[in-house]
Amino acid sequence: MSALPLEAGTWVVLCGGSGGAKLAVGLAQLLGERLAVIVNTGDDFTHLGLYISPDVDTVLYSLAGVVNEETGWGRRTETWTFMGALGELAGPTWFKLGDADLATHVDRSWRLCAGESLTQIGAHQRAALGVTARILPMSDDPVRTLLETDAGVLSFQEYFVRHQCRPIVRAIRFDGAGAARPTRDVVDALSARDLAGVIIGPSNPWLSVDPILAVAGMRDVMRAGGAPIVAVSPIIGGKAVKGPTAKIMGELGLPPDSRTVARHYAGLIDGFVIDSADQALQEDMQLPVVVTNTMMRSLDDKVVLARQCLAFCRHLAGPRVAGTRASP
Amino acid sequence: MSALPLEAGTWVVLCGGSGGAKLAVGLAQLLGERLAVIVNTGDDFTHLGLYISPDVDTVLYSLAGVVNEETGWGRRTETWTFMGALGELAGPTWFKLGDADLATHVDRSWRLCAGESLTQIGAHQRAALGVTARILPMSDDPVRTLLETDAGVLSFQEYFVRHQCRPIVRAIRFDGAGAARPTRDVVDALSARDLAGVIIGPSNPWLSVDPILAVAGMRDVMRAGGAPIVAVSPIIGGKAVKGPTAKIMGELGLPPDSRTVARHYAGLIDGFVIDSADQALQEDMQLPVVVTNTMMRSLDDKVVLARQCLAFCRHLAGPRVAGTRASP
Repeated sequence: MSALPLEAGTWVVLCGGSGGAKLAVGLAQLLGERLAVIVNTGDDFTHLGLYISPDVDTVLYSLAGVVNEETGWGRRTETWTFMGALGELAGPTWFKLGDADLATHVDRSWRLCAGESLTQIGAHQRAALGVTARILPMSDDPVRTLLETDAGVLSFQEYFVRHQCRPIVRAIRFDGAGAARPTRDVVDALSARDLAGVIIGPSNPWLSVDPILAVAGMRDVMRAGGAPIVAVSPIIGGKAVKGPTAKIMGELGLPPDSRTVARHYAGLIDGFVIDSADQALQEDMQLPVVVTNTMMRSLDDKVVLARQCLAFCRHLAGPRVAGTRASP
Repeated sequence: MSALPLEAGTWVVLCGGSGGAKLAVGLAQLLGERLAVIVNTGDDFTHLGLYISPDVDTVLYSLAGVVNEETGWGRRTETWTFMGALGELAGPTWFKLGDADLATHVDRSWRLCAGESLTQIGAHQRAALGVTARILPMSDDPVRTLLETDAGVLSFQEYFVRHQCRPIVRAIRFDGAGAARPTRDVVDALSARDLAGVIIGPSNPWLSVDPILAVAGMRDVMRAGGAPIVAVSPIIGGKAVKGPTAKIMGELGLPPDSRTVARHYAGLIDGFVIDSADQALQEDMQLPVVVTNTMMRSLDDKVVLARQCLAFCRHLAGPRVAGTRASP
């Protein structure tokens, strides 16, 4: 019924690194400055005196078109002279920092010391790299994702990089989340009068999306806006495209399939997007489902999936005109 | 009278970057671990949140054989990816930081944050790079060289790098020097029972050596040891080999020649080394002088000049046996 273009209004995507960042690229192609990307900062840590924000970096590099698609982190064109020299100085080399990547961390760190917020720095860096979509750290307050494992309590980077996801995960917690607040920019994006939809990207629900949802008040702000919320499953055929999602689900006693992800988001989302490989699972899901190709290998894959997410939100919104919200 | 090898005992050289660092290389070839290099830290500054110690770095790189001899700072084998990426982020690029060089600053900065002293870090870094001579920052307390110029009060790096030595210098001061103390390692090196001589390298007397001498108690410790002190003039034929020494001397109303340098060190040094080009000037000097080639182009030049400095100290010490000090 609507003659509005599919992309009209403003949109929000929530994501961590890798899968979510890929969908953000597709959405940014369609939406440009009308897209706000709310990014997990639970993996942030200080290393060598530098404040490193892995998911924000991956989103920044992805949207700027400079990400290393093979590794899923860091920059495509990179040199490694710093790491070599640091190794000569017997410094810690377990966390790989490319020379160009290092500029992002040094720039962020000294700006933080000078009193800028993560949000301000995110705005500065994405503008400098020509990104029009807004990159919004979920909070300017510290939240730290900690994994209780058989090898002790580990920060995400220790678990993911240093221990290469080998320890068995017993529980996950987000230190500081209860005291952290969504930023003004995050609240504004989620409360915009013309908000057309919120998409939860195919990032790890337990490690990358849950820290965002754990920020005090975040779920309420997301629901209060009234715009449809859809999530894209990161699980395809019982496996994660990348990373330890399926392994961790198993260790937490959860069946590693898309149904579990749908149940995890129950009460928050209005619709769910799963891969064609999991078509048979949609029967068991108690909410609207779109079945499509969720494996994003090319830019075209990303744009196609992004467009389907927009259309799904439009469909869920029903006979409302974008830009006007149903009265509460 | 003495059958001792020329190099017997322990030795100290005081220096800034460039000329002094070159002589330190010659001395280190002869003396190895029996050499302590006391280095100016008045040029230290914080940039991009990193603690940068330009003279310590130049001495470290020079002794490790990795210095860029053409520029006199930084490393010979270097890449510049970081600077390029920082420029993309609209960060400050006036101070050039190579990717390998950056490792030195990042390593130093996080160690400082972790509570290590400049002295401890200097010991760690020189050992990591295989340097046997000790590199001793003059003080672990902050001293900042400030230049009062016609363009305002400038830190050394602002004057030297940002303004490329163009402003006219009216006065030089060393903020914090009165409260700073020589480190325990510096005092021990200058008080060693087997100290055979102290050499003031051909660094800028006003900008690079004076900050060392300004540290509270430094001159007393140097004299109290009783070992001969000789200085090498950085001026050859009325010009500095490198840097703004002669320009600054002129601006301070001082004739830019070796006699002025000798007068500057009067009361502290026992002997003075000048270049053959300045042979005629030795008549006017009121202390023992050695005339030789002080232009160090090759490693051989450095070693030859270093050996002459040792021999000069031996000569000045007279009929004493190294390792025993004349009774006070």
